[in-house]
Formats: sequence, C-alpha cells, structure tokens
Amino acid sequence: MMDTTDLPVTAADIDEAAGVLAPFAVRTPLLSSPALDALTGARVLLKPEMLQRTGSFKFRGAFNKVSSIPPAARGGGVVAFSSGNHAQGVAASAQLLNMRATIVMPADAPLSKRERTKGYGAEVVLYDRLREDREAIAREIAVSRGATLVPPYDDPRVIAGQGTVGREIAEDCAALGLAPDLVVAPVSGGGLIAGIAVAVKARCPQASIISAEPEAFNDHARSLAAGRREPHRAEGSTICDALMASIPGQLTFAINQRLLSHGVTASDAEVARAVAVLFRELKLVAEPGGAVALAALLAGRIDARDKTIVIVLSGGNVDADMYARLILAE
Amino acid sequence: MMDTTDLPVTAADIDEAAGVLAPFAVRTPLLSSPALDALTGARVLLKPEMLQRTGSFKFRGAFNKVSSIPPAARGGGVVAFSSGNHAQGVAASAQLLNMRATIVMPADAPLSKRERTKGYGAEVVLYDRLREDREAIAREIAVSRGATLVPPYDDPRVIAGQGTVGREIAEDCAALGLAPDLVVAPVSGGGLIAGIAVAVKARCPQASIISAEPEAFNDHARSLAAGRREPHRAEGSTICDALMASIPGQLTFAINQRLLSHGVTASDAEVARAVAVLFRELKLVAEPGGAVALAALLAGRIDARDKTIVIVLSGGNVDADMYARLILAE
Repeated sequence: MMDTTDLPVTAADIDEAAGVLAPFAVRTPLLSSPALDALTGARVLLKPEMLQRTGSFKFRGAFNKVSSIPPAARGGGVVAFSSGNHAQGVAASAQLLNMRATIVMPADAPLSKRERTKGYGAEVVLYDRLREDREAIAREIAVSRGATLVPPYDDPRVIAGQGTVGREIAEDCAALGLAPDLVVAPVSGGGLIAGIAVAVKARCPQASIISAEPEAFNDHARSLAAGRREPHRAEGSTICDALMASIPGQLTFAINQRLLSHGVTASDAEVARAVAVLFRELKLVAEPGGAVALAALLAGRIDARDKTIVIVLSGGNVDADMYARLILAE
Repeated sequence: MMDTTDLPVTAADIDEAAGVLAPFAVRTPLLSSPALDALTGARVLLKPEMLQRTGSFKFRGAFNKVSSIPPAARGGGVVAFSSGNHAQGVAASAQLLNMRATIVMPADAPLSKRERTKGYGAEVVLYDRLREDREAIAREIAVSRGATLVPPYDDPRVIAGQGTVGREIAEDCAALGLAPDLVVAPVSGGGLIAGIAVAVKARCPQASIISAEPEAFNDHARSLAAGRREPHRAEGSTICDALMASIPGQLTFAINQRLLSHGVTASDAEVARAVAVLFRELKLVAEPGGAVALAALLAGRIDARDKTIVIVLSGGNVDADMYARLILAE
C-alpha cells in the first residue's frame, strides 16, 4: 500500500469511516456497460452514487462527520450551508441520529433539493447567492444555537466519509480482477475526489486520478496545472448546480495536489449529452453535475482507449422539468 | 433445496445458464432503499434489470437460447417476434455470436425499442398488431431463411436464462443474511417469473412468489386463481407495452401454477406513480411495464409490512417523451 500517513486524511481514516457508515449507507455497485465500452473503446466501470441514500455521495461524508459529534454537543444540533446535496446528506444524517438540523441554501437551488432537505426534517434557511455570505449566516446560527457546523468538504471526517467511495471502487475492481488505470470524479470543493484519491492510491498506486468540472468553474484544472489554489476565471454559468465552488478547498487541495494527475472540463452541452446517454443506455438518472466526468470522457477529453476507467457519477437529484429538457434535447 | 426435477426447467438448468451468461450478462445488484422502506414499512430490495445489457432482463433468456444453437444451424441466423425487449435481447445475442437476426415487431412499438433493435444489427420487420399474426410471419421467415425461431418465453432455455435473475436474488439475499418472504416480478408470457420461481424456491422454499401485471392484462392473476390458463377478459389498453400477452404460456404456466402464490395487478396511474418514485427516490429509469411490481406494492396490493420483499424491475427501455410525461405528471 502507498503511504498516506502524512496526508490530512489517511487510508486508515477511510477504513474507520467505512465501519461507521456500513449500517447506514448503501454500498453502491460498480457497473459495467457494454454500450459505453463500445462508445469509448475503453473498459468503463461506473460508480453510481445517485443510488446512495439521499441521492448523492454527500451522505457518506455528512454521516461520518455528524456521528463524530460527542453526545454532550448533540443537543445543539447541526448547521450546514449547501446548494442541495450536502444539505440532504446532513439533514438525513441528523435525522438518523435524532439531532436537529438547520440548512442554509441558496434561494435558486433546485426545488427538489429544497423539498427533499425539508423532507429529512431539516429547517431550511434561504439566502441570496449573489449578495449574501452563506458561511457568515451559518456561523451565526452555529453560535446562537450552539449547533455544530458540518462543512461541505474542508474537513478530515467529511473527506474520509467520501473516501469510502474510493475504497469500494478499489475493492470491487479487485474482486473483478481489474486494476483501474484511470479514476475520474466530479469536483466542486474537492472533498469527494480527495477521499477517493487517498483510498484508491493506497490500494492501486498505478491508477491516475483525474478531476472533472464544468468549463465555467474550472478552478481545479487551473489549480492543478498551476500547483496552487486558484479561483476559476470565467464569469459564466453552468447547469451543474452542484459544482459551483469558486476555488479548491485548502485541506482538499493539500491532498489533491499530491495525488491527482490533472483536471478536465466539460461544457453544458456535453454534460447534457452525458445525462441523456445515461438515460438511454444505462437507465440511471444523473443530475448535470453528477454526469460531468462521463461528459468529459464522451467528449474525448480523456485518453481511455484500451484502458480500464472508473467514472464516478456523483448524484441524481434533478428536478423533473430540467431532466425532461435534458433527455428530450438529444 | 426444494426438488424441481419434475418441472420443465430445473434449478440445475438455471445453474448451467448462469455459466453460459457469466462472461456476457451484467450481474445486476440487489439494491436497498431507505426511502422505499420508509414508504412501505417493509424491507424492500430491488433487482434492477434495467441495468442489464440491452436495458431489460430479456438478454438473459435470449442469449442462453441463441448460444445453444448448434454450429451447423447458425448460418441461417435467428428470427423472433417481440414488442421490443425480447427483440433487443435476441438482436444483441446474435450480434455477440456473429449471427444474423430478423425481428418481427409491432408497428406501434416504442420508437426507441425499434431503433435500439436495429442498433444491434438486426433486420426489423414491422406488422400490424391488430390485423396480422406475428407468429405466422416469424415462422414463414424461419422456413424461408433456415433461421432458428427464438420464442419470447415458452422455451426451456429461455426460461432458464431468465431464471438467473432469481439465482442472483437468492445468492445476494444470502450474502446479506436475509431470507426473502416475498418476491414479486412483472409478467407477460410468464417466462421471467417462472425462471425466478424455480431458482428462488430451490434455495428459499419459504418465499412466496407473486406475479404483477397491468389491470387490463390480468390473465396471470385470473389463471392462477382459476388453476388453468385463462386469457384476460378486459378490452382495455395499458401503458405497459412490454406486458401485453393475452394468456399465460403453456410451459411457463406449468411452472407458475405449481410455484406461484397468486397474482396482483396495478392500474396505469399506479404504474406512472411507481415510475416517478423510481425517478425521484431511486434514480433508476424504469419503463412502465418494468415498474408494475413496485406499483402494486406502493398501491397497497401486497401485504409486505415488516417483511423482506424483493421487487424485480424488469426493464427501462422507454421513449424520452413518454418518460418526460410520466415524471412530470407526478
């Protein structure tokens, strides 16, 4: 195994998180797809985290963090800021642990994400994404209510929880007798891919780990190329509502700078095509951000021919009207 | 193990089919869903055959049958009649085995099913479902071309191939330490559930096997209650294009009469709701017929509270415009 003991999160932390999550998280499968193999000339394996509890991988990190709060501090509940998937992860985790949850969400988050967050028993506080500071709002709630803040990515326990995705990928590849050449995952703050990188590199050191993000939010591609955290430069927008962080996290980038190979991007049109391919060929519902790694592969941005490539599909929480538009456009 | 040796298909036939299929079929997972558990009060496990090669379970039976054709007869190719899923299963199997395939399909079959069948290299011959006899057309092609007919359900090798679904269910339940109380699967000709019943009853004799079908095509529910093959009586239609057989198969009913508990039905509105629940909560794309077993459960037609129930989702080949209507209606 590769030595990860000098990183902020280690393979042992992820093993521990796997034990914490085992009774609660869905162990998502690793799916093969003859149709994608034919389309790409690669051996494609999909890790469909839309099948995870709450419809995205975010439950893993949130539950690992929330369950680490000591009993004496649980009475104050938890607070989080999130565009929707972390919100549901935290709300569902708090509900399972009988804790109160307050979630600060942008007023323009997809309706289904707001409704589902409330459905897990959380109080939702909306803010204006362009004019208000969500972290300040969340901190104020944390102080006034004695609530514990559950960060979306820059936290060792959150990263370790997300890392269980990578641990399962490595285990399932081994069971299939395959060694992955490439592992590609969507990034926003970078917590998912940081955890995956630690877990996969520990077991499959030959694998290259690649981040995928929207063209207009290309801060990881830029930062990995520059060797330091850089914000995305573009002023554009994206249909990938889950992937709108403006700069890599500090803790996550400390890991990703060490373990990632490079970053790729995909346009909204390429993402839409990937969502439609997943509908038509895989019968999996992906939200736009959840399909960005596949979008980059299908757009030819990753040299995967004759290689074994694992594509992480990070979530499937998409409003029905947006989804209908995406699958009808193709 | 329960003795199945006097049935037209035995557990040993299914074990053999599993070996034939292993290099080619997707071993679909058995998915848990906290959301469905909460909705139903049961322990629900889903067998998502929309994730199978060709988007439905039909590949299993078709490949097991086509691969049994002796080398000397392969030059004539294969012929089949099907509304769409068997068509794709046969076409994909023939393509994998370098054989020619001709598929007789109703002119009103979903466009995506016709296109996907052609996509596997098959020649598609359309017929008028109300005025022409598809079996006669297929037999004529078989004779004139020396092609082997691949029946959609009333064939021991086809049933044995579909039975691998049940074999995997039993294996995966055992791995989870669970014994299924109920297994529910969609029926049309009855091949899928016959194979499942043989495989599951051999390993889990306590499990009740239940068929699910559209209200207007309730021939299995009627036949199981009557103890003999009876056609459905209604003149109605259904959105479940895959489940429009008018009477149970002979071979399949010989098995199902022995091994099934009873049959349940669901209305089109209930099926639409199940498709939407699978979109929202499970992120799985089901075609209407593929969701009929879940529809019956959600409609309260199956007493599953506090029980372990396996629901087979048989396919996901649905046109984008029909799917958009179903998920937007809820």
